[in-house]
Amino acid sequence: MSLKYLTSRTAQQIDEELMSSAGAFSLDQLMELAGIACAQALARVYDKKKYPNVLVCCGPGNQGGDGLVAARHLGMFGYRPTIYMPKPGSKDIYQRLKLQCDNMKIKTIPPSNDPEILRDALSSTNVILDAIFGFSFKGPIRAPFDSALPILSDSRLPIVSVDIPSGWHVEEGNVEGVGLRPDVLVSLTAPKLGVRSFGGRHFLGGRFIPKSLEEKFELNLPEYPGSDQIVELKE
Amino acid sequence: MSLKYLTSRTAQQIDEELMSSAGAFSLDQLMELAGIACAQALARVYDKKKYPNVLVCCGPGNQGGDGLVAARHLGMFGYRPTIYMPKPGSKDIYQRLKLQCDNMKIKTIPPSNDPEILRDALSSTNVILDAIFGFSFKGPIRAPFDSALPILSDSRLPIVSVDIPSGWHVEEGNVEGVGLRPDVLVSLTAPKLGVRSFGGRHFLGGRFIPKSLEEKFELNLPEYPGSDQIVELKE
Repeated sequence: MSLKYLTSRTAQQIDEELMSSAGAFSLDQLMELAGIACAQALARVYDKKKYPNVLVCCGPGNQGGDGLVAARHLGMFGYRPTIYMPKPGSKDIYQRLKLQCDNMKIKTIPPSNDPEILRDALSSTNVILDAIFGFSFKGPIRAPFDSALPILSDSRLPIVSVDIPSGWHVEEGNVEGVGLRPDVLVSLTAPKLGVRSFGGRHFLGGRFIPKSLEEKFELNLPEYPGSDQIVELKE
Repeated sequence: MSLKYLTSRTAQQIDEELMSSAGAFSLDQLMELAGIACAQALARVYDKKKYPNVLVCCGPGNQGGDGLVAARHLGMFGYRPTIYMPKPGSKDIYQRLKLQCDNMKIKTIPPSNDPEILRDALSSTNVILDAIFGFSFKGPIRAPFDSALPILSDSRLPIVSVDIPSGWHVEEGNVEGVGLRPDVLVSLTAPKLGVRSFGGRHFLGGRFIPKSLEEKFELNLPEYPGSDQIVELKE
């Protein structure tokens, strides 16, 4: 039985069940565990001595929230994260997560449409954490991300993407060729159909799925080692 | 500069600041991170192959909530936790955390004043996680815990205590001699004055204190290794 790759709709259903009585989780809990998994995966691949400066790119949805949690944990791990969040989310949780980063003295790039500001931040960045678009992404890519994605790509910096590389179709992958090309991918809960042919290092995070949900959705999750919040997927 | 040991009052102040604008954390987040630290410390010392059956003893307060989170993560780590929670807390978060454990098919000992039920559970237990009383504990020890603590002690099973071993005075230690005598202690945020002379393996968890709070309270926290949520304290 092999690991299941999810449609966008199934990913959404699992998310809903995790927060319904079948899981009973709060969004605060799920984001905390997702974000810590992303931070751990980045730390596993990119040593903080060689890659201290992480640009954490956050979208306006839950994916961006995972990014903010990851930024905070990366700060605790001894990295120097900077947040790029040109379109802040309006949800209360998003603002609390941002305030937690502010309290940790994590810098945020001032919101601006000037591409030079992003390029300037990239010039002192060692690795990018891409938490812009998640499993509910439906194109087209709107401003300011339409211009930001090519700038991130052009930097040729290593990229760690969360769940689905930004710009990819969730089920069909980088069909339009406009998406980021990450070196590392952190799939949350279970990988999405669009990343079936992803060739980089691929981690799974989200070690919180009750067995009943795993069975219901026939996820066939791999075993996580020890007390880690991530497991690396091998071909 | 050595690690600071906290009074009960300072521990409470830090907790309040973490949830005020200085920290901006939700109780859900703090409990999740505290609970995962406790589960990791137990897993570090007691291998799941030799010690699969963990009796997680939960009090009616926030400490019990940490215990429920730890029980869930221990289940994810491959242990077989059982919950002993003779006096369930009434807070909403407590009930959600319990439901999460139920959803993971983690068993709970039926509430009862019959000491045989606890003794029976202990007969198939390999290690006890003590999350009964925390840093706001003020004696005397009331029923049903007055009779439960001696039964736990008499089992001679290894005990991992969270923050302050149950029955100990938070600042003066096991002065009355009625407290548990744990082999392992997981202090959260910073150790409390009462455990200064604790001689077992001592871990620190709660890797979420902003530098500003660490400085304000002169905690002098040690460095956590890698992306771990715990650090072992050495003499």
